Amino acid sequence: MPVTRASDPPALFEAAGNGDRVALARLLSLIERGGPGSREVARLAYKTPGAAYSVGITGAPGAGKSTLTDRLIAVARRDGFDGGGQVAVLAIDPSSPFSGGAILGDRVRMQSHALDDGVFIRSMATRGHLGGLSLAVPDALRLLSAVGMPVVFLETVGVGQQEVEVAAATDTTVVVVNPGWGDAIQANKAGLLEIADLFVINKADRPNADGTRRDLELMLDLTELGEWRPEIAETVASTGDGVDALWAAIGRHRTHQSERGLIDELRRQRLLREFRQIIAARLDERITDLTDSREFAGVTRSMLSGEIDPYEAADRLLAGVRPDRAGGETDA
Amino acid sequence: MPVTRASDPPALFEAAGNGDRVALARLLSLIERGGPGSREVARLAYKTPGAAYSVGITGAPGAGKSTLTDRLIAVARRDGFDGGGQVAVLAIDPSSPFSGGAILGDRVRMQSHALDDGVFIRSMATRGHLGGLSLAVPDALRLLSAVGMPVVFLETVGVGQQEVEVAAATDTTVVVVNPGWGDAIQANKAGLLEIADLFVINKADRPNADGTRRDLELMLDLTELGEWRPEIAETVASTGDGVDALWAAIGRHRTHQSERGLIDELRRQRLLREFRQIIAARLDERITDLTDSREFAGVTRSMLSGEIDPYEAADRLLAGVRPDRAGGETDA
Repeated sequence: MPVTRASDPPALFEAAGNGDRVALARLLSLIERGGPGSREVARLAYKTPGAAYSVGITGAPGAGKSTLTDRLIAVARRDGFDGGGQVAVLAIDPSSPFSGGAILGDRVRMQSHALDDGVFIRSMATRGHLGGLSLAVPDALRLLSAVGMPVVFLETVGVGQQEVEVAAATDTTVVVVNPGWGDAIQANKAGLLEIADLFVINKADRPNADGTRRDLELMLDLTELGEWRPEIAETVASTGDGVDALWAAIGRHRTHQSERGLIDELRRQRLLREFRQIIAARLDERITDLTDSREFAGVTRSMLSGEIDPYEAADRLLAGVRPDRAGGETDA
Repeated sequence: MPVTRASDPPALFEAAGNGDRVALARLLSLIERGGPGSREVARLAYKTPGAAYSVGITGAPGAGKSTLTDRLIAVARRDGFDGGGQVAVLAIDPSSPFSGGAILGDRVRMQSHALDDGVFIRSMATRGHLGGLSLAVPDALRLLSAVGMPVVFLETVGVGQQEVEVAAATDTTVVVVNPGWGDAIQANKAGLLEIADLFVINKADRPNADGTRRDLELMLDLTELGEWRPEIAETVASTGDGVDALWAAIGRHRTHQSERGLIDELRRQRLLREFRQIIAARLDERITDLTDSREFAGVTRSMLSGEIDPYEAADRLLAGVRPDRAGGETDA
């Protein structure tokens, strides 16, 4: 099914819905790139809600997230939640938006699933998307759902603020730690405790996995939890040990949420957060517009000469904001 | 010199300039509190530039920053940069804006300088200041300079994004680490390497100070540096060992900057950044206004029902932004 008009989102969207992976990859590129094309893809995906269940996998660099994701792909492909099916993977590295590293990573990972048409793996960076990854990732997840993916893994690299935010955009968030003193505490400091639905102690054949489990349990004891207490799984991703049990734990969290109708509420909350982020990003664009303006240069001169203070300078500049910039049609 | 009108910034400012410490403390409270009072203090301070040299002291909790600052106060009081003089200290803890901990910390520290009129120590939190600490701290530093303080120490607790930002607002930034494996690497991860003008290995009598120095040197070798390569001092704050040498190193950095005319350029850059932050904070206030509005509720309903996507929702909402909100007179 060759795609005839590569730059036409509706045609690409239809093709992707019929299983065209090249079209799907192009749609994701449009999202990454931002601008009107991205906007159109987002609108199409929003009008066609799918039923994808998304699983975020996050943790410190070196914890073995990629290998673990690779193993989870195989289990999800074979068993799914209600029988095997297609699997999509988004690998996110906010810290290196233009790196060839991500692409290389794709290829390495693709090795074990290269011959499997049912697995779609894509690295994702942001090039020009309004609001960066915080907004590009929800768009991408909705797209993958809209084209019929039943399971989407979202793997993040690093544990910065943005990774935590992005990982929290999934239905189940898995936080990967390793055995060893302090790993659990580092995860807590990085804000991962708050977003974890499940913990995995990967490389659990190494010494002190028990100690890490105790640390995590203690930290959970000290945290105000909802009805769900995060389970703690143990895996050795390199051999595949424990991965089936981890998948089962993910399934239990999914069941917990769907039985209580929590998933809809969760998605509603995420949508509201996204809405706020779009508004924030729009206003942010206007700051950039302002600082590029001729008024900015004049006001800045007055400020640097000591004539007016920075608050007065901001007042003068913002008094010149035209209201019609607010409802602009493009988002990049 | 009793202050007659406690809520009148010009009177307080004049009194503080004549050495009234109660007036100075009240002005800082006004800055913390934000709003028109803060704005007026900022304007007064801006119109009266002083000659304070500011030294930021940052690093992970437990590194011994408070004890070190306490020692530095004594040296700065005795020697200054060009002879002894007054010293002001701002202790910042963004993570606990309302904590009594900060106030307790004051009292503990005050012990060693309680009888010295030449030392002014103040904890600072933000209560309502527009833009939070990122904007309150520059205002406070300008105030302390305007009332004639020659040396101001800014001590931050914690190593979050905001602390790094705040610490970078000083003329010389000192990053405190401890001996031991990984401490230098943690400092690097926290973004402290980028802002450090000087490193101090405090508790240098503990094992592995040499290892930490090697780590730091290596990381500096791997970093693109300007003309100034951060010096690495060693101290034992609890005994005072090395503190004179640290003060001398701070002085060398100051001389380096003043000889090359870098301080003016640095302050110019900071002023521009501050200006941008004020604009950002102003626009941020408008987001809050928007999400409190009746339009927001209506647009949100349409979005959650699937009628419009979040981008469309943002467009509709922002189309209703009134221009006259931009040039508001108050900032809180």
